Amino acid sequence: MRLSRYFLPVLKETPSEAQIASHRLMLRAGMIKQQAAGIYSWLPLGYKVLKNIERIVHEEQQRAGHIPILMPTLQSADLWRESGRYDDYGQEMLRITDRHGRDMLYGPTNEEMVTDIFRAHVGSYKDLPLTLYHIQWKFRDEIRPRFGVMRGREFFMKDGYNFDLTREDALHAYNRHLVSYLRTYERMGLQAIPMRADGGPIGGDYTHEFLVLAETGESEVFYDSEITDLKFGDREIDYDSVEACQAVLEEFTSRYARTDETHDEALFNEIPEERRRVARGIEVGQIFYFGTKYSEAMGATVQDSDGNKVPVEMGSHGIGVSRLVGALIEANHDDKGIIWPEGVTPFHCGIVNLKQGDDEADAACETLYKALTAAGLEPLYDDRNERAGGKFATMDLIGLPWRITVGPRGLKNGVVELTSRRTGESEELAPEAAVAKVREIYGV
Amino acid sequence: MRLSRYFLPVLKETPSEAQIASHRLMLRAGMIKQQAAGIYSWLPLGYKVLKNIERIVHEEQQRAGHIPILMPTLQSADLWRESGRYDDYGQEMLRITDRHGRDMLYGPTNEEMVTDIFRAHVGSYKDLPLTLYHIQWKFRDEIRPRFGVMRGREFFMKDGYNFDLTREDALHAYNRHLVSYLRTYERMGLQAIPMRADGGPIGGDYTHEFLVLAETGESEVFYDSEITDLKFGDREIDYDSVEACQAVLEEFTSRYARTDETHDEALFNEIPEERRRVARGIEVGQIFYFGTKYSEAMGATVQDSDGNKVPVEMGSHGIGVSRLVGALIEANHDDKGIIWPEGVTPFHCGIVNLKQGDDEADAACETLYKALTAAGLEPLYDDRNERAGGKFATMDLIGLPWRITVGPRGLKNGVVELTSRRTGESEELAPEAAVAKVREIYGV
Repeated sequence: MRLSRYFLPVLKETPSEAQIASHRLMLRAGMIKQQAAGIYSWLPLGYKVLKNIERIVHEEQQRAGHIPILMPTLQSADLWRESGRYDDYGQEMLRITDRHGRDMLYGPTNEEMVTDIFRAHVGSYKDLPLTLYHIQWKFRDEIRPRFGVMRGREFFMKDGYNFDLTREDALHAYNRHLVSYLRTYERMGLQAIPMRADGGPIGGDYTHEFLVLAETGESEVFYDSEITDLKFGDREIDYDSVEACQAVLEEFTSRYARTDETHDEALFNEIPEERRRVARGIEVGQIFYFGTKYSEAMGATVQDSDGNKVPVEMGSHGIGVSRLVGALIEANHDDKGIIWPEGVTPFHCGIVNLKQGDDEADAACETLYKALTAAGLEPLYDDRNERAGGKFATMDLIGLPWRITVGPRGLKNGVVELTSRRTGESEELAPEAAVAKVREIYGV
Repeated sequence: MRLSRYFLPVLKETPSEAQIASHRLMLRAGMIKQQAAGIYSWLPLGYKVLKNIERIVHEEQQRAGHIPILMPTLQSADLWRESGRYDDYGQEMLRITDRHGRDMLYGPTNEEMVTDIFRAHVGSYKDLPLTLYHIQWKFRDEIRPRFGVMRGREFFMKDGYNFDLTREDALHAYNRHLVSYLRTYERMGLQAIPMRADGGPIGGDYTHEFLVLAETGESEVFYDSEITDLKFGDREIDYDSVEACQAVLEEFTSRYARTDETHDEALFNEIPEERRRVARGIEVGQIFYFGTKYSEAMGATVQDSDGNKVPVEMGSHGIGVSRLVGALIEANHDDKGIIWPEGVTPFHCGIVNLKQGDDEADAACETLYKALTAAGLEPLYDDRNERAGGKFATMDLIGLPWRITVGPRGLKNGVVELTSRRTGESEELAPEAAVAKVREIYGV
């Protein structure tokens, strides 16, 4: 993309309404615009990051054998009356009346609807196991929306639901989700720690939250420092293997790691003192096993191999897709701006032309732009007539992990400069070598 | 995808509520499930087609230089009070009150919001031309939703908005959209004819609707038969060229083609009688130029090169993404089921194992499945223990354009059967040759 043709409305001043770094930087980098309290438009740069996160979530869900569907945003109140949650859910549920006076709501989650799909179409244990998921906009009418997309009202979430014949199968689905979530967050360059959590309005006593450590996190967390050394890494995993998934769960959840909701001071104090950590964290996902809570209330049964009708065993599993954009920035920024991990960056690298209009510099930038594009990469080429200082400040603010700087002086010596946003380190290279290096970084 | 692990709830009976073929077939093929009047869940097969259409729309929009954003589904009523449309819009607008008593609405379209984004961030003619678009769920509270996704209440739409300094520039944007729409529909295997239309609630006297001819179409259409011979085809186009885009507009709109709303009997009768056609059509898109209607009402101005503040020239342009799924089926089906065009098919081909459990047949199917997958194609392998007749009926119903049939008898002679869903013609081929043929069809 050429910046002269793009829409990147960066702000010079720091917006006064933003209290935390991610909100401030998303506004300053022209990623979002608030349209109402807790409701945002995603401007081009923000949209690209959101879509990159969505893509990674889709890929990892499908790798685990989960099947994508798409449920609507609006739901009938009657469905929620069946589970009893229409009355239980408080004012956070946005209730709507249509032109015929029917009670509707903007879905805050989808247990009821997916159970309705299941009971309409599945009747036999032979069709199990089954995990359906979708990534869809949801609404929670927060009384005080704040922190930008971190605690918005309209938010984008992946929610998945497993249907199994037995408790053991459902617990395998739970473990499979835990494994796939570890992979998902690591691909985004995030360490998200599974912590024992509380069931809340979804229900279920078997649940973990995934937390990203960050000073601005809303939850206080308590953990054994050994846990931050764990990496899922490149290992292959057979998602059908009960043992393999169980082993990963044990590896990642056997050490103490809890939020304030489930914290147990006595247990915590059993950890050697030098490994005890108290910090803050941002919740970016949660998995639940809740058994037959919804299937019993809503009559979602299957016939087992003996011909008996049994309520299906279920769990639900969520990843906060729009919230992750904020969490990623909280975990990756400095005083100049955002520092995107390569896995989610909106553009793979920036190209800064120090002297727009200089024939040689322009031609070198064009060549770089075309070579990177031909390799399947998306560079952002700052081809505006601006001072170098302004161009650098914009690139630092929007946080592309790599920048290629092109100027007449370097070109005289046959080199351009490749700079890492994270370390600030620069290297002088022939233009072709810079392209090769960027390709190597992204593995293309 | 192996069918034994997929969720494809096909129906044996024809649902009584469905009046038209696409609605009937989408229910029977397990593509959608109704959740409330005019509100649907997209089951796995339907979701894949919806996403394929969305992808083509994105690619063609970006090819034309248009920039993706994402606006929220809920909007503040105040924004619509600025344009005067909050009161003008009838009961089709779903009005919502949040917990603080603020008036909100579920956006039926986004002229106001995108104008708000523009006025907040753009102030100079130097930032023009600019076209922003998004693909987002919308809601129109139809009094009588019907025909499945063709006239639903919650629907998925691409809406794009151009911002230009002059009327001439805005008309070029209009023409650019017309060209990109022709490409978009052709890639889906659809002929959509641009017809002179009526402005309706968007406003504007310069507007074309795109109609797909189909017996079940809601609009009566009148056209010169020569128009159906026009193809955009593979031609290259420079979207920046005013002349090139203008020439395409003239080529595709110079012949008589109107809906009943704008039909002029006298003009129609000037066409030689043998070329006059009266038929029915489904609207799948519309483009508008409306000038300064919203920018004046909402104060969206730019400074021109003389330093004068002028209201920006605008247009808006929509493609009915979810509706297209229905329109595609109306235009592509027979009494056995759907016939997907290659451009949008949910799976590239089916593999039918005539004797599941037979070692040779199973092995041959696995080899085919892996070879097609390795080539970047997505086959749907019917690996269930079912009779051949049932497997064929399912494949015919869900409409994959190509089917490879594998059985012990053919394998003895070293062949499998490749069948076209559209023509019904079959060909016996070595398995490798069948893979090569399918790869050739999809150009991979």
